[in-house]
Amino acid sequence: MKLLYDLLELSGVSSNESDTANFLLEFIQKRKSSWNVLPKIYSGENFHDCILLKFGNPSTAVFAHMDTIGFMARYQNQLIPVGGPEIISGTWLTGKDSLGQIRCQLLGDEEELSHNFPRKVDPGTCFSFEQNIRVDEEFIQAAYLDNRVGLYNALKLCETIENGWIVFSTYEEHGGGSMPFLLKFIQENSPIKQALISDITWITDGVRHHEGVVISIRDKFIPRRKFLDRIISLANQSNIPFQLEVEAYGGSDGREVQFSPYAIDWCFIGAAEDHVHTPNEKVSLADIHSMIEMYKYLLANF
Amino acid sequence: MKLLYDLLELSGVSSNESDTANFLLEFIQKRKSSWNVLPKIYSGENFHDCILLKFGNPSTAVFAHMDTIGFMARYQNQLIPVGGPEIISGTWLTGKDSLGQIRCQLLGDEEELSHNFPRKVDPGTCFSFEQNIRVDEEFIQAAYLDNRVGLYNALKLCETIENGWIVFSTYEEHGGGSMPFLLKFIQENSPIKQALISDITWITDGVRHHEGVVISIRDKFIPRRKFLDRIISLANQSNIPFQLEVEAYGGSDGREVQFSPYAIDWCFIGAAEDHVHTPNEKVSLADIHSMIEMYKYLLANF
Amino acid sequence: MKLLYDLLELSGVSSNESDTANFLLEFIQKRKSSWNVLPKIYSGENFHDCILLKFGNPSTAVFAHMDTIGFMARYQNQLIPVGGPEIISGTWLTGKDSLGQIRCQLLGDEEELSHNFPRKVDPGTCFSFEQNIRVDEEFIQAAYLDNRVGLYNALKLCETIENGWIVFSTYEEHGGGSMPFLLKFIQENSPIKQALISDITWITDGVRHHEGVVISIRDKFIPRRKFLDRIISLANQSNIPFQLEVEAYGGSDGREVQFSPYAIDWCFIGAAEDHVHTPNEKVSLADIHSMIEMYKYLLANF
Repeated sequence: MKLLYDLLELSGVSSNESDTANFLLEFIQKRKSSWNVLPKIYSGENFHDCILLKFGNPSTAVFAHMDTIGFMARYQNQLIPVGGPEIISGTWLTGKDSLGQIRCQLLGDEEELSHNFPRKVDPGTCFSFEQNIRVDEEFIQAAYLDNRVGLYNALKLCETIENGWIVFSTYEEHGGGSMPFLLKFIQENSPIKQALISDITWITDGVRHHEGVVISIRDKFIPRRKFLDRIISLANQSNIPFQLEVEAYGGSDGREVQFSPYAIDWCFIGAAEDHVHTPNEKVSLADIHSMIEMYKYLLANF
Repeated sequence: MKLLYDLLELSGVSSNESDTANFLLEFIQKRKSSWNVLPKIYSGENFHDCILLKFGNPSTAVFAHMDTIGFMARYQNQLIPVGGPEIISGTWLTGKDSLGQIRCQLLGDEEELSHNFPRKVDPGTCFSFEQNIRVDEEFIQAAYLDNRVGLYNALKLCETIENGWIVFSTYEEHGGGSMPFLLKFIQENSPIKQALISDITWITDGVRHHEGVVISIRDKFIPRRKFLDRIISLANQSNIPFQLEVEAYGGSDGREVQFSPYAIDWCFIGAAEDHVHTPNEKVSLADIHSMIEMYKYLLANF
Repeated sequence: MKLLYDLLELSGVSSNESDTANFLLEFIQKRKSSWNVLPKIYSGENFHDCILLKFGNPSTAVFAHMDTIGFMARYQNQLIPVGGPEIISGTWLTGKDSLGQIRCQLLGDEEELSHNFPRKVDPGTCFSFEQNIRVDEEFIQAAYLDNRVGLYNALKLCETIENGWIVFSTYEEHGGGSMPFLLKFIQENSPIKQALISDITWITDGVRHHEGVVISIRDKFIPRRKFLDRIISLANQSNIPFQLEVEAYGGSDGREVQFSPYAIDWCFIGAAEDHVHTPNEKVSLADIHSMIEMYKYLLANF
């Protein structure tokens, strides 16, 4: 879990993911020789802040987004959201501008947001929730489990995967925009037939803590039934705990696979959290465990 | 009309179009030798559930979507919509899950939908409106004339077309997502300059039954004026009854042609219905006739 | 400024940009021999109504949209908007249909729009705001400064640019749709790393007349921080007046660069106006001047 804690301490508000990307790259360089298969690594300015790892001969890609929701300084002491953070007046935020580190509180409501930092902040400065990681025997609670857990799962999968792309995307929380060029690069280099989205979903009427990783039958968008049937059949064989989600709302990098100019099947598979998009996101440790196991199983058995 | 009745009996809620695709493929295989030109057929897993027919040397493609609106089982006895069905409590629905056939009623309103089937239904099960085809001398009334009439028109066009793509797409009712890869395949294999959307539109202030096929000047999106002018001029020459539509809302597969990375003109041409997205969609038989005639005329005279 | 006045007299409602395109092409043909570098010109039906100019060896493209907001005739005397015009009952509109020139007034509100022209107008006829250009020592006020100023800036840049694409796009005000094929053509012919959007933005809490061209840190979408930092650093070096914008709403052709399948950085740079999308758009002459200077500086110093 040390790796997950390290990931949770990084900041990476959508559009400003370079610190997270640098951490991931360093980690990958340090650890790759211990993995079963040595991946080919694609990163750098041609990929903006994204990273692609190609293991063996892929027919599947796993996507984990590295960006988080947050806030941006507007004029005076105003803030505007990046992505869809929950607005809870009094929440502690951290950021950094040309004059140095900033720690302040979020004030106001969805109509009008501000911060209480005593000096003027550079317009465009990004703010994240202040991190506070809490772990007990059953749960981890922190800001940004969405999607540090997805990154963690993807990095754990690197240890054993033999064939497949593992891809770290940006901008997922704020409309997207890196998936189109990532998919184009993949399809033109070592094309895939299917994509799994390593991300965090929501506790709802039908999705509960400790009942296993969630395989999503749909959110706002709907994967192809034939592909879902195959995933669910493999999941049943695996004996790993899982639950099925059927929701009318929400989206993920899967949306951009759906609308890409490639016939690629996709499915969202991830642990569920409550207190979504707050500093208190909460995920069952057992669900994280079954998420990691399920990815390992699926990538080995597709 | 036998073919149209057969098409109306199929179920094909967006994401679950394989039964419809199989029917179309079988029909095409059986009938193709009677057509003026033998098409090249593209289908199978590389095209998900879509089908492309290439006749001669195309400069035009005709797109007809094979999916329908419907509902999906959520948890307990909850339902959520697929696409935008009209919510009329008491409507009869049909579906099928791992335990067998299901017939039940839709209950509730747009806020909270459920069904009254006495046993638990597998989450993710698709439901369609129960079919009830009614025909008199002037009208056909049924569920899913949108877009079984569009499919019917496309299949009738197969009989005489000499040059052109005829393409059966998926997911149109629920956000789209097959058009991008279909267009890419077409442009990389036998590229087109223009696309016609074979689909059903709405009776409105200015669109009436029995006044001919509708040529749409716009819905939410607007085709290029130069192309519309050319279509309308050909339609005038044809002496086939038609009417012009100018609406602020609605969309079709034309939207995805507009936003594709290809300079392809597009226009929606189709008969109009009332009781849209209910089990009682109603279209004038004369308008279906002029739709078929207009497509034949345009494809022969572009 | 003669050129700007000429541009302001053209009509070019989204989907009907051919008059504007023809004017631009003629102007380009007449003036190109006086420019520092002779561009390669791409236009014609393969590009719909868009125009691309390639100067030298580009790494940057400048995009200016040639379309405007307006209205379209529906049935009877109804109107529907094209793009997002401000609805001010009594506004004078001009258009032209098969029976000749039309001058009439806009009536009604956002719920129900009509015109008061005494005869029936062809459905689908486009209407523009009647033009009324007013200039004093500080300001220009007219309809359609958005985006005739952007076109003007792009054409002024043609005089001195050595390397770069200058591209005139369509449909920006009504959902877009030309940028995807323009970007594909550029990337497949002489690819770029970055894009500047030559367009007009809004006077807001933090953006004021006479304070220089606006460099937008964000609107609804957010460019990559690394690229913004580079632009702002160059702008600081330039000694040209500029101001920074941080807004939660609005969009531009930059949106389509963001969502394109290419890793291209983008930034919106343009003068600000008030009375947005009315016949009385108002821009500071000094801000137009710094817009032109900033584009020349950036293109010479990237």
